[in-house]
Amino acid sequence: MDLGKFVVIEGLEGAGKSSVISAIKNKLEMHDIKNIQTREPGGTPLAESLRDAIKKHWQEQVTTETELMLMYAARSQLLENVIKPALQEGKWVIGDRHDLSSRAYQGGGRQVDPKLIEGIRSITLKGFSPELTLYLDVEPKVGLARARGRGELDRIEMSGLTFFERVRSAYLAAAETDPSIVVINAMQSMSDVQNDVLSVIDEFIQQ
Amino acid sequence: MDLGKFVVIEGLEGAGKSSVISAIKNKLEMHDIKNIQTREPGGTPLAESLRDAIKKHWQEQVTTETELMLMYAARSQLLENVIKPALQEGKWVIGDRHDLSSRAYQGGGRQVDPKLIEGIRSITLKGFSPELTLYLDVEPKVGLARARGRGELDRIEMSGLTFFERVRSAYLAAAETDPSIVVINAMQSMSDVQNDVLSVIDEFIQQ
Repeated sequence: MDLGKFVVIEGLEGAGKSSVISAIKNKLEMHDIKNIQTREPGGTPLAESLRDAIKKHWQEQVTTETELMLMYAARSQLLENVIKPALQEGKWVIGDRHDLSSRAYQGGGRQVDPKLIEGIRSITLKGFSPELTLYLDVEPKVGLARARGRGELDRIEMSGLTFFERVRSAYLAAAETDPSIVVINAMQSMSDVQNDVLSVIDEFIQQ
Repeated sequence: MDLGKFVVIEGLEGAGKSSVISAIKNKLEMHDIKNIQTREPGGTPLAESLRDAIKKHWQEQVTTETELMLMYAARSQLLENVIKPALQEGKWVIGDRHDLSSRAYQGGGRQVDPKLIEGIRSITLKGFSPELTLYLDVEPKVGLARARGRGELDRIEMSGLTFFERVRSAYLAAAETDPSIVVINAMQSMSDVQNDVLSVIDEFIQQ
């Protein structure tokens, strides 16, 4: 039996990740490709409890190191208990965010020392990486306006536009050096975005 | 104002850490030295919630990396929010376990790759270490018999004697290379142990 593939969808708030994930899921099912969907951080009981700990407003200062280690502890649980076993069973895994989010949001957005992220990342992932990452690229203003329309913004919106500009730059910089990251123009209409995504997925299925 | 000192008490179950900590506390108070006591993992709301997560029996496999990162995330919270501020205020901190426990139990006992521990340790502690560590040395048989007498053994006892022999060897090996770790013979009577400990502490206070 062939191993499954790990396809990750990344992007800013309001980039359209959920719609794209549904479209990919439909496409895989049309091809009779078994698949599961994950989200990060989360996806196992321990990882979900760490998600809560990461998102909770603690009275104490949460150190950069703690935040990163909780994020990667959740990722380690999901990777070893869910993602790798599914791939072994030949299932495809569609990830709503994965490691690149940490590099873009913590590294780019919050300007955490890249060596710190790289240290924790290499310890946790040991070179594991998705076969394909689709980065849905929107200008922060466009994405935030969409997300605001859904009433989904809260603490994140307070980070401000310059924060999201830095996140976007980090995504685009990663895509420049890593050929497994494909940039999709997500400022188009949703149907054009889906067409672009599905043509990449079609080609990827044929490989 | 002088900075406080961080004194850590380490040892196997049943080594007599609690009695020794009380004796040190009394001695410091006789010298009008303000002090606080910590335990690890734990000591802040987030660190205590991570302590619970570490000790809980999850249905899923908890990876070595996750366990270590949760341990060090709790340590980072305690260090930055409790230990360092107390030292800055001139208080002494008496630690019921600290970093050396991870190296002895995970590194020695569970035989986790030392490079993995060292990677996470250097990211989290950035070279911070206690001024003095008292390692209360007991043969595992002696310590476990004492702990069993108090009804305190459970999951840990199941690890078996060879596990604790490895933990003890790791403690002793660390003491050989690090002059800030003092080995106390904890197989003597409790009053002799306390005398040995307090003479080290007396000397340390004079410095």
